[in-house]
Amino acid sequence: MGSTPKYDPNFTQHVIDTCGPNTSPRMKTIFGAMMRHLHDFAREVDLTPEEWLAGVKFLNETGKIWAESDGKRNEMHRLSDITGLESLVTEIANYVQTEDPNYTPTSAAILGPFWSPNATWRELGDSVIQDPHEGVVTYMHGVIRDLSTHKPIPGVTFDFWQASSNGKYDFQDPDNQSDNNLRGKFKTDENGEYRLYCLRPTAYSLPTDGPSFQLLNALDRHPMRPAHIHLMITKDNYKPVITQIYPKDDPWLSTDTVFAVKDDLVVDFNPVGKIPDSMKEHTGPGGKATKELELNIVLAPLGVAGHSDPEPKS
Amino acid sequence: MGSTPKYDPNFTQHVIDTCGPNTSPRMKTIFGAMMRHLHDFAREVDLTPEEWLAGVKFLNETGKIWAESDGKRNEMHRLSDITGLESLVTEIANYVQTEDPNYTPTSAAILGPFWSPNATWRELGDSVIQDPHEGVVTYMHGVIRDLSTHKPIPGVTFDFWQASSNGKYDFQDPDNQSDNNLRGKFKTDENGEYRLYCLRPTAYSLPTDGPSFQLLNALDRHPMRPAHIHLMITKDNYKPVITQIYPKDDPWLSTDTVFAVKDDLVVDFNPVGKIPDSMKEHTGPGGKATKELELNIVLAPLGVAGHSDPEPKS
Repeated sequence: MGSTPKYDPNFTQHVIDTCGPNTSPRMKTIFGAMMRHLHDFAREVDLTPEEWLAGVKFLNETGKIWAESDGKRNEMHRLSDITGLESLVTEIANYVQTEDPNYTPTSAAILGPFWSPNATWRELGDSVIQDPHEGVVTYMHGVIRDLSTHKPIPGVTFDFWQASSNGKYDFQDPDNQSDNNLRGKFKTDENGEYRLYCLRPTAYSLPTDGPSFQLLNALDRHPMRPAHIHLMITKDNYKPVITQIYPKDDPWLSTDTVFAVKDDLVVDFNPVGKIPDSMKEHTGPGGKATKELELNIVLAPLGVAGHSDPEPKS
Repeated sequence: MGSTPKYDPNFTQHVIDTCGPNTSPRMKTIFGAMMRHLHDFAREVDLTPEEWLAGVKFLNETGKIWAESDGKRNEMHRLSDITGLESLVTEIANYVQTEDPNYTPTSAAILGPFWSPNATWRELGDSVIQDPHEGVVTYMHGVIRDLSTHKPIPGVTFDFWQASSNGKYDFQDPDNQSDNNLRGKFKTDENGEYRLYCLRPTAYSLPTDGPSFQLLNALDRHPMRPAHIHLMITKDNYKPVITQIYPKDDPWLSTDTVFAVKDDLVVDFNPVGKIPDSMKEHTGPGGKATKELELNIVLAPLGVAGHSDPEPKS
């Protein structure tokens, strides 16, 4: 049959063409691209009725967990993490073309499901460690600078969250952790600096009792996230940076199960050096800091040339 | 930047390469193609975090309906219908390359959610109409033949189901319809013939209170299915035919909301001619037949040359 297509060559365009004149342009763009890729996928793999029905059942079971947990457990979100979709959407949203390839905004990484809109404000130099743990107390500090001027930015909100040494966040672990343990919001000082005490982070596994773990098993993949600290760094008139940082010696960096590691987000935890006089001594659980992490951040001002310019949504 | 890709060109292959050595070949094929299409889709439309999260929520809400109805209401299945996926999977599963383009197996169409594994057996010439209706009684008959020999096939199972004149199937409509109303299984006689009384079918709307209707609205599409009769035609050593037939004058043929219409499935309902002596008179609700439908069927023997030969599943 030579180049004659095996299946009806007009089918996909017919489905797209049923959209009426009152579809929004953005919806039409999304639906059109989705239909082309969905149908091409099915034709490329000769998807069988049994496989398609297994997919329908899998998505239903995934939504069921969300429904039965009153929205607390979002395995559908997790599916988009283990397939790289959230990481990709994060890359797309944060695309900036810079003039100087050696001085770029700090990379973004996925928000994940554990950010809290209610994290407490803390003073510069405070500790986020409230409760007992088996981790390593770390002095973390750095300067936040402007991409265009390279100057420090005072008054930046530095929102920090991390799991405890058992791999759990405060609201997953109410028996061992108080509200806002290992969370806090800080403001940079007049020199654009932040400083705090936290834990060297601990690697942990995604939940192993749901559909996303079933998929990982079918793909012969592990459920591990490398150790990481979450950050959300915001300031009026700057593009926000939502990101994660990772210790350089973590064994899961190259196979992070949610694909959120980027080169400039991998950092060194060094033996602690001199702690500045402006810091109080850490007196909370775990005692004195034995590690130090310096992390400097670059924020892009809004409207800087080269910003990604998505097509208008409507 | 010329042809430099905007986004990390290695990301998708990295996601695919995390599959371990114990992934089955078929799973690897499906997952690889799915990742390429999912990621290309997101990059092509510059999918935003808000749009991605709206998609996650939409699928969760869709699964919730399935969970809350104990699996009775499958809006996830319906989503694959209104996006053409079930119809496409049906086309793929039934692909047969025939030597004579003028003599081909009867086309397949989607099974849909209303087939019953428990339909009652009926005698040739019986009526499937058990309950009152406002439809038109129709005498339906035809011959079932072999694709290779063109000869009639005795002993074929002809499983028939249709909605009543109110657009509902028996198990959607327990107040008005008894079990197996407008359903029945028949066997062809020694001449490969079947004959029965049924209704001229009625167009109906998909449910308008769920996620699939929300999507149709966003696409400015109607929720109508053209009038149709469902058939499942099976015989040992033949490829089963699951299909639907449609009256030629139905207004929804070209925009069927589940894209299941194919040219050879559009049929004429004519004024009734001579009813053969072998038929009993229809004495059930609605009185005598006033329409006649002749529908001849062609079944492909298993193993006939040119059958689609899907790659081995494992």
